[in-house]
Amino acid sequence: MIEPAILKGFRDSLPHEELVKRTLIRKLEDSFRSHGFVPIDTPVLEYTQVLLGKGGGETDKQVFSFKDNGGRDVAMRFDLTVPFARYMALHFSELPLPFKRYHINKVWRGEKPQKGRYREFIQCDFDIVGADNAIADFEILMMMNNAFKTLGVKEYTFHVNHRGMFNSFLEKEGLLEKSVDILRAVDKLRKIGEDKVRELLDALTEDKAKTDRIIEYITANSSSSSFNETLERLSKLSGECSGLSRMREIEVLLRNANILSYFSLDPSITRGLDYYTGLVYETFLDKASDVGSVCSGGRYNNLASLYTKENLPGVGSSIGLDRLISALSDIDKELFASSSSADILILPFDTSYAFSLATKIREEGLKADIYLSENIKMKRVYDYAEKNKIKFLLSAKECPEGTLEIKNLVNREIYKVEKGSSIREALSL
Amino acid sequence: MIEPAILKGFRDSLPHEELVKRTLIRKLEDSFRSHGFVPIDTPVLEYTQVLLGKGGGETDKQVFSFKDNGGRDVAMRFDLTVPFARYMALHFSELPLPFKRYHINKVWRGEKPQKGRYREFIQCDFDIVGADNAIADFEILMMMNNAFKTLGVKEYTFHVNHRGMFNSFLEKEGLLEKSVDILRAVDKLRKIGEDKVRELLDALTEDKAKTDRIIEYITANSSSSSFNETLERLSKLSGECSGLSRMREIEVLLRNANILSYFSLDPSITRGLDYYTGLVYETFLDKASDVGSVCSGGRYNNLASLYTKENLPGVGSSIGLDRLISALSDIDKELFASSSSADILILPFDTSYAFSLATKIREEGLKADIYLSENIKMKRVYDYAEKNKIKFLLSAKECPEGTLEIKNLVNREIYKVEKGSSIREALSL
Repeated sequence: MIEPAILKGFRDSLPHEELVKRTLIRKLEDSFRSHGFVPIDTPVLEYTQVLLGKGGGETDKQVFSFKDNGGRDVAMRFDLTVPFARYMALHFSELPLPFKRYHINKVWRGEKPQKGRYREFIQCDFDIVGADNAIADFEILMMMNNAFKTLGVKEYTFHVNHRGMFNSFLEKEGLLEKSVDILRAVDKLRKIGEDKVRELLDALTEDKAKTDRIIEYITANSSSSSFNETLERLSKLSGECSGLSRMREIEVLLRNANILSYFSLDPSITRGLDYYTGLVYETFLDKASDVGSVCSGGRYNNLASLYTKENLPGVGSSIGLDRLISALSDIDKELFASSSSADILILPFDTSYAFSLATKIREEGLKADIYLSENIKMKRVYDYAEKNKIKFLLSAKECPEGTLEIKNLVNREIYKVEKGSSIREALSL
Repeated sequence: MIEPAILKGFRDSLPHEELVKRTLIRKLEDSFRSHGFVPIDTPVLEYTQVLLGKGGGETDKQVFSFKDNGGRDVAMRFDLTVPFARYMALHFSELPLPFKRYHINKVWRGEKPQKGRYREFIQCDFDIVGADNAIADFEILMMMNNAFKTLGVKEYTFHVNHRGMFNSFLEKEGLLEKSVDILRAVDKLRKIGEDKVRELLDALTEDKAKTDRIIEYITANSSSSSFNETLERLSKLSGECSGLSRMREIEVLLRNANILSYFSLDPSITRGLDYYTGLVYETFLDKASDVGSVCSGGRYNNLASLYTKENLPGVGSSIGLDRLISALSDIDKELFASSSSADILILPFDTSYAFSLATKIREEGLKADIYLSENIKMKRVYDYAEKNKIKFLLSAKECPEGTLEIKNLVNREIYKVEKGSSIREALSL
C-alpha cells in the first residue's frame, strides 16, 4: 500500500472550494470578455533559458526546473508574464494590435510554504499590449473596477501612482541614479512604517533634507485629499513632465466615467520590480487590508525585449485570486454557502421515472441529482444531501394524479407541484 | 536576445483556438453540473511513487519526473485517474458517496510527438465512485449522451460492451486464464482487421474452432442488429451471468429514456487496460471515425486499492477534448466562426463618450471593445476588426440628436439606433 500523500506546499481542491473558485473565474472571464479581452494559453513547461533569461538569483532557486528525457533544460512557469512576453515575440504579427488578453492559470514556485502561500497557485493576468496612451491605461483601470464589481467585492480601493513623476522628482533632487534603490525603500512603507523607511532613505540620500522631501512626496496624499489635490501637490515636487500629463488625462477619464471614488492617488506605491515605467497600482480591501494587495500591476515600456526587436509597450494587471478568495470567504458568506452540487435530489424508487423527472428539471435550467443507490436508507440520503448542500428532495414514486411532492430539507416544508407546471416557479428557484 | 522557442510537442493556444476550447469546456461543465457532478482539482506535481506505484515500464519513460530542490522524487501527472484515486483515498470520509466528480485539466506525457498528439493535452474525466449498480452505469451513459448533445456533436455512436460477459464466455471455452491477452488481441480488431486478429487468437487458443467462436462472439453485432438482438445472441455464448443481467437492466433504462438509438452493443470493444471489470465503451463520430474514440471508459471494481483498504467501485468516462475539437473543426464550421473577441468595436473619437457607450452596450449583455489608439487610421481599424472577427463598428463622435450609426462590416449596412433604444435589438444580436 502506498501512502496517499501530497507534496508539501501543494493541496487538493475539494468540491465546495473548487465550485467557488470556478464561479469566480467564470465571472471574471465574462467581465474580461465583455471588454473585448480574449483568452490565451501557453505551455506549462518551457525552455529554462526562455523563462529565466531575465531572472535574477532569487527567482532561479524558486523555479521547478529539470532535464527532460531528451536532455533539454526545462522549467515550469513561475508566472504568466514571462511566457506572455515569449508568446508575443512569437505571434505578434498574427495578432490584432493593440492586443488585449487575459490568462487565468496555475504557476509554480518552490517558495517556503507559509500560511496562505502555496507552491502551486492561480494567477489571473490581463494586459493591453501595443498601446502607450492614457486610454489604454484607463481601460485597464476600468477593467479592474468592473472585475471587482462583477466578483461582488465590496469596499476596495485602487491605489495608483506614476513612476515617471517620481523619477522626475528624483531627478530634480539629483537622486535619479539611485532611483531603483529609493523605489525599493519606498515600496516598504506599508510594511515597515515611515520611521524605518526614513532610515533606509537617509543611508541612500546622505542628506536629511532630501529624505524629508522624499517623505513629503510619498505621503502627499494624507489627510484624505482628493485625487486631483494630491496630483497638484505632487506636480509642485515633480515639475511638469510626461508622467504628470498622463496622470491628468487619466484623472479626467476616471472622473467622466464616475469611478474616480474607487481610486486613490498614493505616491507611496512604487511596485518592487524594475520592469514598470509609468502608471503603477495596488489594490487593498478596506475590511481586509492585512491580506495585502489583491490586484497589482502597471505600465511597462517593452514587454518582450528579451526575445524580439519589436517594441511592445503595454499595461497590465494581475489579480491575486487565492488571496482574494480567502479574504472574500470571511466577508461574503453567501458566496460560500452557494456551493451546492444540485438544486434537487431525486430518490429513484422508480428508476426510469426518476431519470425522466431529472430530465424535466434540467430542462428548466435547474440541477438535478439522482441518488444512485438501489437500497435507499433515509439516514444516508440526508447525510448525502447535507454534504452536497442540496436543499430540495423529491421521491420518484409514480403517483396516480402525477402531482409531485418536493420537500425543503432546511425548513421541512412540503411543496406540491401539479403535473405540467413549473418546478422552478413552485420552489421559487 | 533569446530565441522565443517552444518545446517540441508543446504549443501555444491562440485566441481563436482558446475561445473555442473555453466555450466547449463551459458547455461541458454546465452539462456535468446539471447532473449534480462537481468539479475537483489536484496538484500537477505529485510524489513519483504515488503516480507510478501501479505503472508499468512504458508509462515510466513517458512521465516528466525529476528531483525537486528538496530532493524529493516528483512527477507531473500523466492522467487524471491516478490522482483521483489518491484523492479519494485521502478524502473519502469527507465526501458524499456516491461521489460524482468531473475534472477537466492538463496532463503531460513525453510521447513521441505526432500529428494531433502533443506532450501537453487536456483530459476531461467524469466518474461516479461508491456505487456498483445499473443506475450508476446508466447515469454515466446518459451523462455522455447529454454532454455530446450539449457540445452540439452530431452523428455519434456509443459502442458499449461488458467485460464480465466476455470473460464468462471465455470461461466456458476454458480460456479464462488467457483473458488479458485475448482482450488485448480483440481490442485491435478496429485497427488491424479480422484476419490479423484471427492470427493473434490462433496463437493464443491453439484451436481454430475456439478462435472461430471468439470471432463469432466479437462480431455478433454485425448486419445492423438491434442492441437487444445482439445481447440475446451473446447470452447464448456467455450463458447466464451477472454481466448479462446488468446489461439487460441497462438496456431497459436506455430504452425507457428514449436514448437507446445512440448506443450500439459492440462485443469487439474491450478497452486495453486491465483496470476495467464490467461495462466498457468507446465513442466514434460517424463522419470522422478515423480520429478514433472521442469518449471512452468503463466500470472498475476498485479505484484506490493502491492507497486504501476502503473499497471504492466506480464507473467513469473520459472525453478526448483535443481530438473532439479537431474533429468538430471540420464538421462544425459555425462554432469556429463564432470565436470573435467582441460584438461591437468602438472608435474613441470622443474618449469619455466612447467609454460611456461601451458601458451601455455591456449592460445589454454585449461585448464592446474600444479601439485603444489616439491616432485612428481606418486601414488599421479594419485589419483589427477582421483579426478579432468583430462584425459591428461604432464611431463615438457625439452627434446632436444622440442617434448612433453602427456599421455592419460584413455587408456594409448602416444601422441607426435612437437614443435610449436597445442596441442589441437594433442589430438583432
